[in-house]
Amino acid sequence: MHKAIATASVGGTLEDKLQAISAAKFDGIELFDNDLISSSMLPSDVAQRCADLGLSIDLFQPVRDVEGVAPESFGAVLRYFEYKLDVMESLDAATVLMCSNATPEAIADPDLSAEQLHALGGLAQERGIVIAFEALAWGTHVNRLSHAWDIVRRADHPSVGLAVDTFHLLAKGDDASALNEIPANRIVFLQVADAPHLLMDILESSQHFRCFPGQGTLDVVSVVDAVVTAGYRGPVSAAVFSDVVRAAPAAKTALDAMRSLLYLEEQLRLRWDSTGLPDAPRPQVVLFDPPPAPPSVDSAFVEVAVRPDDKDFTDLLGQLGFRHAGTHRTKPVSWWSNGGANLILDASSDLSDHRAVALSRPEVTALCVQTVGVADLATRSTALMWPSVQRQRGAGEAMLPGLSTPSGIHVFITAPTGDADDWHNDFIPVPAEADGADEGGWLGIDHIGMIVDPGELDEEVSFYRTLFGLTSGPVSEFVDPQGRLRSRVLRPAQGDLRVVLNVTAAGRSVPTRTGVNQLAFACDDIFAAVARLRQRGVDLLNIPDNYYVDVRARFDLDYKFVGRLRENGILYDRTERGEFLHVYTQKFEGRFYVELLQRLGDYDGYGVPNTYIRLAAQAVAQRPSS
Amino acid sequence: MHKAIATASVGGTLEDKLQAISAAKFDGIELFDNDLISSSMLPSDVAQRCADLGLSIDLFQPVRDVEGVAPESFGAVLRYFEYKLDVMESLDAATVLMCSNATPEAIADPDLSAEQLHALGGLAQERGIVIAFEALAWGTHVNRLSHAWDIVRRADHPSVGLAVDTFHLLAKGDDASALNEIPANRIVFLQVADAPHLLMDILESSQHFRCFPGQGTLDVVSVVDAVVTAGYRGPVSAAVFSDVVRAAPAAKTALDAMRSLLYLEEQLRLRWDSTGLPDAPRPQVVLFDPPPAPPSVDSAFVEVAVRPDDKDFTDLLGQLGFRHAGTHRTKPVSWWSNGGANLILDASSDLSDHRAVALSRPEVTALCVQTVGVADLATRSTALMWPSVQRQRGAGEAMLPGLSTPSGIHVFITAPTGDADDWHNDFIPVPAEADGADEGGWLGIDHIGMIVDPGELDEEVSFYRTLFGLTSGPVSEFVDPQGRLRSRVLRPAQGDLRVVLNVTAAGRSVPTRTGVNQLAFACDDIFAAVARLRQRGVDLLNIPDNYYVDVRARFDLDYKFVGRLRENGILYDRTERGEFLHVYTQKFEGRFYVELLQRLGDYDGYGVPNTYIRLAAQAVAQRPSS
Repeated sequence: MHKAIATASVGGTLEDKLQAISAAKFDGIELFDNDLISSSMLPSDVAQRCADLGLSIDLFQPVRDVEGVAPESFGAVLRYFEYKLDVMESLDAATVLMCSNATPEAIADPDLSAEQLHALGGLAQERGIVIAFEALAWGTHVNRLSHAWDIVRRADHPSVGLAVDTFHLLAKGDDASALNEIPANRIVFLQVADAPHLLMDILESSQHFRCFPGQGTLDVVSVVDAVVTAGYRGPVSAAVFSDVVRAAPAAKTALDAMRSLLYLEEQLRLRWDSTGLPDAPRPQVVLFDPPPAPPSVDSAFVEVAVRPDDKDFTDLLGQLGFRHAGTHRTKPVSWWSNGGANLILDASSDLSDHRAVALSRPEVTALCVQTVGVADLATRSTALMWPSVQRQRGAGEAMLPGLSTPSGIHVFITAPTGDADDWHNDFIPVPAEADGADEGGWLGIDHIGMIVDPGELDEEVSFYRTLFGLTSGPVSEFVDPQGRLRSRVLRPAQGDLRVVLNVTAAGRSVPTRTGVNQLAFACDDIFAAVARLRQRGVDLLNIPDNYYVDVRARFDLDYKFVGRLRENGILYDRTERGEFLHVYTQKFEGRFYVELLQRLGDYDGYGVPNTYIRLAAQAVAQRPSS
Repeated sequence: MHKAIATASVGGTLEDKLQAISAAKFDGIELFDNDLISSSMLPSDVAQRCADLGLSIDLFQPVRDVEGVAPESFGAVLRYFEYKLDVMESLDAATVLMCSNATPEAIADPDLSAEQLHALGGLAQERGIVIAFEALAWGTHVNRLSHAWDIVRRADHPSVGLAVDTFHLLAKGDDASALNEIPANRIVFLQVADAPHLLMDILESSQHFRCFPGQGTLDVVSVVDAVVTAGYRGPVSAAVFSDVVRAAPAAKTALDAMRSLLYLEEQLRLRWDSTGLPDAPRPQVVLFDPPPAPPSVDSAFVEVAVRPDDKDFTDLLGQLGFRHAGTHRTKPVSWWSNGGANLILDASSDLSDHRAVALSRPEVTALCVQTVGVADLATRSTALMWPSVQRQRGAGEAMLPGLSTPSGIHVFITAPTGDADDWHNDFIPVPAEADGADEGGWLGIDHIGMIVDPGELDEEVSFYRTLFGLTSGPVSEFVDPQGRLRSRVLRPAQGDLRVVLNVTAAGRSVPTRTGVNQLAFACDDIFAAVARLRQRGVDLLNIPDNYYVDVRARFDLDYKFVGRLRENGILYDRTERGEFLHVYTQKFEGRFYVELLQRLGDYDGYGVPNTYIRLAAQAVAQRPSS
């Protein structure tokens, strides 16, 4: 597909935008008039620059509120459009976007609108230009695709066609079936955008929360499928106007948009492969075709950058029931394990590889996931332009390709245990001590929680979605003593990997440290496990007595059971699917803490009703003593 | 009035909250159960602490979704409520809030809801406790005051009354007349909150944008008037749950809330004074009664903290047409003027008085406004608990009381010219030089623009509103190359003061410097003024040629006139009221710039349609040369 992006979707000056869009391998742009007017490049300069960069100018958007206009004001509209047609000739742009009138003065008369579009079409035709008419979801009278099509049909001019925008279409509650009645040859432009949810006012949502396809919850693929299957072969253009997107560096945004379109193409291809297209030949469109996402994804280990010989930290690991299980063949790296839970301690990693801000050790820097087809996954990652991590690979060591996520975490990919590319091969095992250092006997990594900058959330989600096919569950929100947290959980279709991304809302008084702040491990007897932790001197988070009064009342629990929860400082949750018991350590050096949890029955959550208790207890624990 | 605040409206731990609420001189609290449960203080400890701090516990909010419940689940509701009644006895709290059921499972049956509230009322009555039932604006079936009243009426229980919340009432489009049919003795609690606008989803708006009364656009006063005039004499409680509010330090938020309630009381008193209450005796309620806000507010001067003998800066002032007009009698402070525009340069001011962040000179640190009744205004400020600026006052110098705004700007108050407390008295005039340093002949300060931290915007607006009676115009938003700006303009009913507050949206890639960044001066012949500026070598912001092509097309301007605009780099705007011409200097040392403008006819705006041009030109100018 010919992939384009709106210049308004990327931050910076027009020069920055064009450079970034070209570097992300787009084929064309939608040029916004404000970007042109505020640039020192004349229209002919812009045309030349785009040609040099291999970009076509697929769409120009210089006018608004041009139909449903009072007849006495329409002369001014025509006059202004003539000026803009001159500009388009200099730009060598052949399609102009016109959106439905969104002013309170708009006149509700489809015939008037059609007549005015017809007149504008006449001017456009003289210059060989086509008008793409679009229903804004907040248009005063014309706000659905069917309204816009009605007017285009009445306008009945060869230079007046329809623009389809997935956001405007889906935001009004329509779906792909809205396209059924529309001949494909009357669709002259396709814009794609997504949105996280539709609770909010549509206009507000468009300006602040619109995101690239796949980053929200709208069924963008179905609309693109319907348009392309019907025969549309024009550009597919990412048109997103979120302030978060514009605030990010242009190069990052352009790449994010490109990956979103590539993933959209792959989804389209997989739909066609799986469902077939019984009534029509498969459209002859070249679609992104990398090795597929892995069928199953498990977590293998978490890597912590440590100071050399950091006895405070290894003592803590010992208290938690981890033992030194192996030594790396070639690097100052050690492997610690507690039953099925694995940690890698690296004293040699370069922290500046991760984030621009200064980090100090210990810091959780990487996550290793286990899949089949490691080499294919590396190829997939390259095709999606995810940046890889440079690393030395010693003789006989596992391939272990590494990638850097947008938030700066590294993700390594290991083959299953026993395979040549299994990470275990890189370590010389240390036998368990004869005197039997008491391992905790934990089950493994349950989930990893991290704080992500709000501006990086969508891109971080894209990493896990486009590369591994992880999907993101519903957003949870909760209040902490300094503001509000918003949380998204990523899960694979198969496998035990769970990644929890938290963003903090704007305006916090306490600056938030981004990065991994939570390592959650599972066990199968939390009462016994907590007893051992306390015996070894682990300082668990203090839970107030009031909590147990409430938890007993809330769940009508047996008072003896509540007594055991209270004695052990264990938090409790229950749903119809099962029960959840969990404890937290204090934050280690203010950076991350360990959660130990037990799932009973089919409980699939994270104890979110207790989050405010954890946050309040952490706030108290972190308070400078006075 | 008895003034209360919800603990959820303030950030920090419960201990922090109570301390801050007491310090801001509140009479009582609404206690949120989560704040209690996550506290290490037992309920009896909380009761004692509140008593020690002089706070009553006016309301407790421990249960939700208690009516419209399936009969088989209602036993659990009663049981849970019994537990919470035990807690209330320990707290010594006499009123419990119950909100309408907001779950999808809520049953639409007013008789069932009434029966369930009646049963809950029975339990409450045994403990001498009253239920305040409230319609949440997002309640599934019960979401208007009239619905809630219908159910309370049907419940027909002496321990079941109604809670009125201005936000929930007004957010649904109702107004004070919704109270007409409700007997005042059935209203058992009054919560007050405001919101900036109602475009967005109500729930989203409540969680993130709800603000203290007077900080939004809802007619809170009318509702409070109706409730109090009807005979309600209970607490008036500020119930705001915005994350911005919670993110701020507790002490700051509590004071902000208190000022909002004091100002609300004053507005109520002024209503009663002005309209009278023909049908009823005036309610016997003690209301806040400070000296009134001044009738008229003008801008007098702007103060800049400078380095001693900063020749770069005074050279720039000279280029701009300012001349050294006076020397302070006792301090290293000089007065510069250009026609009616006055700047005070202070080499001695302490920058750490203004903001916690390190500032460097030159920095715009203060603004002086001119009113009558300076001493009364100082009294008013003290009554509103606005912090004053400590300053030395020499013999014979003007009183010039100074206040510190929440964002750290100082505001001085001067009497009119010629009065004993006129600021001019503090300076020994410097006669104009014989060789006639060419003054610019500007008219005066048109407006002052500053960037405010988003978390401080509401409080900054409160400063100007509560102290001077300034009102805030509609919010404008515009896009800049790094994100989005939101702008609010403050104006007095009479006088020429105009303050423009800008906040930047979340997620900007470039950290924003807060403080005054724009000094706008008016002139009466911008072509002549610009010619003089250029002659003196002032480097004005470069406006791209494309702008003039567009401005000509947009306004159908004469090409010769557009040519003059372009030659002089002047921006243009026009409305039905008049025309606006303006230019900008480059930013001085990256901190602030000067705008020179001319208003024609009754143009009352700020050239907002040109803001994107200024922002883009500034972004180019500030780019490191490469």
